Amino acid sequence: MISCNKDRLRETLETFSRFGATKNRGVTRLSLSKEDIAARNYFCDCCQELGMDVYYDDMGNIYSVLPGKRDVPPIVMGSHLDSVEKGGRFDGVLGVLCALEVVRIFHDYKIEPEIPLMIVNFTNEEGARFDPAMMSSGVLTNKFDKNKMLQSRDKDGVTFESALKESGYEGRIENRLKEASAYLELHIEQGPVLESKQIDIGVVEGVLGMVCYEITIMGESNHAGTTPMSMRKDPLFLAASVISNLRKSLGEIDEDLVYTMGRVIVSPNIHTVIPNKVVFTLEARHQSSEIVKQVEDIIRSLPKESEGCTIQSEKLWGRDTVVFNSTICDQVKSSCEKHHYSYQRMYSGAGHDAQFIASIIPSAMIFVPSVNGKSHCEEEETSYEDCVKGANVLLGTVLALQEK
Amino acid sequence: MISCNKDRLRETLETFSRFGATKNRGVTRLSLSKEDIAARNYFCDCCQELGMDVYYDDMGNIYSVLPGKRDVPPIVMGSHLDSVEKGGRFDGVLGVLCALEVVRIFHDYKIEPEIPLMIVNFTNEEGARFDPAMMSSGVLTNKFDKNKMLQSRDKDGVTFESALKESGYEGRIENRLKEASAYLELHIEQGPVLESKQIDIGVVEGVLGMVCYEITIMGESNHAGTTPMSMRKDPLFLAASVISNLRKSLGEIDEDLVYTMGRVIVSPNIHTVIPNKVVFTLEARHQSSEIVKQVEDIIRSLPKESEGCTIQSEKLWGRDTVVFNSTICDQVKSSCEKHHYSYQRMYSGAGHDAQFIASIIPSAMIFVPSVNGKSHCEEEETSYEDCVKGANVLLGTVLALQEK
Repeated sequence: MISCNKDRLRETLETFSRFGATKNRGVTRLSLSKEDIAARNYFCDCCQELGMDVYYDDMGNIYSVLPGKRDVPPIVMGSHLDSVEKGGRFDGVLGVLCALEVVRIFHDYKIEPEIPLMIVNFTNEEGARFDPAMMSSGVLTNKFDKNKMLQSRDKDGVTFESALKESGYEGRIENRLKEASAYLELHIEQGPVLESKQIDIGVVEGVLGMVCYEITIMGESNHAGTTPMSMRKDPLFLAASVISNLRKSLGEIDEDLVYTMGRVIVSPNIHTVIPNKVVFTLEARHQSSEIVKQVEDIIRSLPKESEGCTIQSEKLWGRDTVVFNSTICDQVKSSCEKHHYSYQRMYSGAGHDAQFIASIIPSAMIFVPSVNGKSHCEEEETSYEDCVKGANVLLGTVLALQEK
Repeated sequence: MISCNKDRLRETLETFSRFGATKNRGVTRLSLSKEDIAARNYFCDCCQELGMDVYYDDMGNIYSVLPGKRDVPPIVMGSHLDSVEKGGRFDGVLGVLCALEVVRIFHDYKIEPEIPLMIVNFTNEEGARFDPAMMSSGVLTNKFDKNKMLQSRDKDGVTFESALKESGYEGRIENRLKEASAYLELHIEQGPVLESKQIDIGVVEGVLGMVCYEITIMGESNHAGTTPMSMRKDPLFLAASVISNLRKSLGEIDEDLVYTMGRVIVSPNIHTVIPNKVVFTLEARHQSSEIVKQVEDIIRSLPKESEGCTIQSEKLWGRDTVVFNSTICDQVKSSCEKHHYSYQRMYSGAGHDAQFIASIIPSAMIFVPSVNGKSHCEEEETSYEDCVKGANVLLGTVLALQEK
């Protein structure tokens, strides 16, 4: 059975980790920054060395194609080379470089593919420099309006449009990915499940649906020393009780439901003043739209008034669960089995380009374990052993898809 | 029975409200700002017109003295002319101007006092420009180190020392208030009690003791979408439950205890990230040191660990309850009774210069109602009817003290 070259993959990952390396073994490679452009340039060189055709589309997405014997839509592998500020050395880049390793194996073994192979690098997946995340896969699949995206500005006021023009990676709209026989995205799990269960591979069958609400509790500020307890309208005390009650109700729905109150803003936030406003977010994710609806019902059933305060909730956004292509998922599983890797079917709690691409191309994802479940930080870690297992599963799946 | 001149008091209050007037009927008269200096200058002029001697000490405190027949320590009335940013038209200035009105009544009726009358304006009571609050009464009573205070800087980096020199109000250390037969401070309540009970006057018998703690709950940040609930160490959920439990325990101690969690800081405070840290303040005030100790016992008995998170508490500061002079309080009560004003014995939940001065001079305070309990904001309001009632009680108390 053909396997990937672990040493070469490690070396390539280490080379790319130097583009935007931070002090503590992380990377800052914001989209279209000079670090990202350096990584892109090197990636294009690697592809051209393998005899691949490299071109870009109007969002700066890079496509490298190894032609096939048959003139049919390609098998696409990919992810993104950009990172968040002080992010890790694996998020995104691992999917692009394992794809490169797969093509290198074809090259090593002089295998001429039946179906063309394509590697894609999506621009600005992280949304860390230009809001929103998954910008370019979103434009490709009509989730986002291109003109709005071009006007997205980084913190220095630079538009995506001008950064793209400056980068030299602005290509033609005709080059956009429209049709393919499959899209495969290998990624780190970004969660603790695989590592804690000592499982090699996550066979990702979809991306969890989610909702995000903002809950606002309004009370009345007064002097902390002079206002008797019975005359207070304290939104912080009420918020504590609302959060505990929500936690209890949500905890009773389903053990796979995840819910987070990640952002809390208290006003005026002075120790000697009773707060007048507490605003917190509640986001929840689950595979079943029925269960997500139960979450929304619980939020909507919050009382409008309590303890002299008002409670309002506003839905900030939501997304439906994305279900990946079951045939491709089965091929990923078979590939795991051939390699005797343990695997687990799972849904991604995080968002990925694949969730948008799945609306136009049969898609699936492959997860490898994240040490301590950490990502988007310098401590992000995946062993090279696990990386090459992921690459092997990707290779096996691509080989199986070739036989279609 | 002699009474104060309501129209004159109103007019004087209105005149002073123009020094630093804000758009919405408030004032911004930060200590030693040009607005404060204008108010000081006008106040000194008013005093000199009444034949009073005006002088300053080394902290810029202003003393105006109407000599008495007897060469004995004076009866002192006063408060502060400075305000917070966008503060109200009554906090502080009311105590100074009611004192002025009392002296004007002596002048109107050609009463030559037996015991000298003194009006004092304390510099930087609010601490809004230079930290800390009650700076100059604190230096007078050895609560604060003068040299440290001189180095306190405003947000533009100007030291208190240079602002004081610039102001022209730096006087001699020998002029400091050291001895007096009484100190009387009239002030707005800054709380809702008098208004809600429709009581004219608060006879303030002391200032509540208080403690302020900071409670830190440390957990672990992880991706909100990829981390199963059972693998989280979420300090926000724990904080909600700790706050609710503290609220319940504190609520069972004593109905006069006030307690506030006014400041809450959640890190990293991103809606898609499980927080790793929640820090909140808990301050509590009560007249009885025994009860304040019970609060501290409850805080200290918090578990050190829970739900995978750690809980730490740190005492930021505390102050003991200050008890005012009971003889003077009784004279304030008698003065209320003579005027047929309703009154209530109470403690001040807020801090005042009187709490420091009480350590060197027999002191008491007189409160007048605050509309909606509001202060330190432009909406701060006290009816002129209530202001003159306060002035009358002050006058009556001073007259009674003259008879000692």
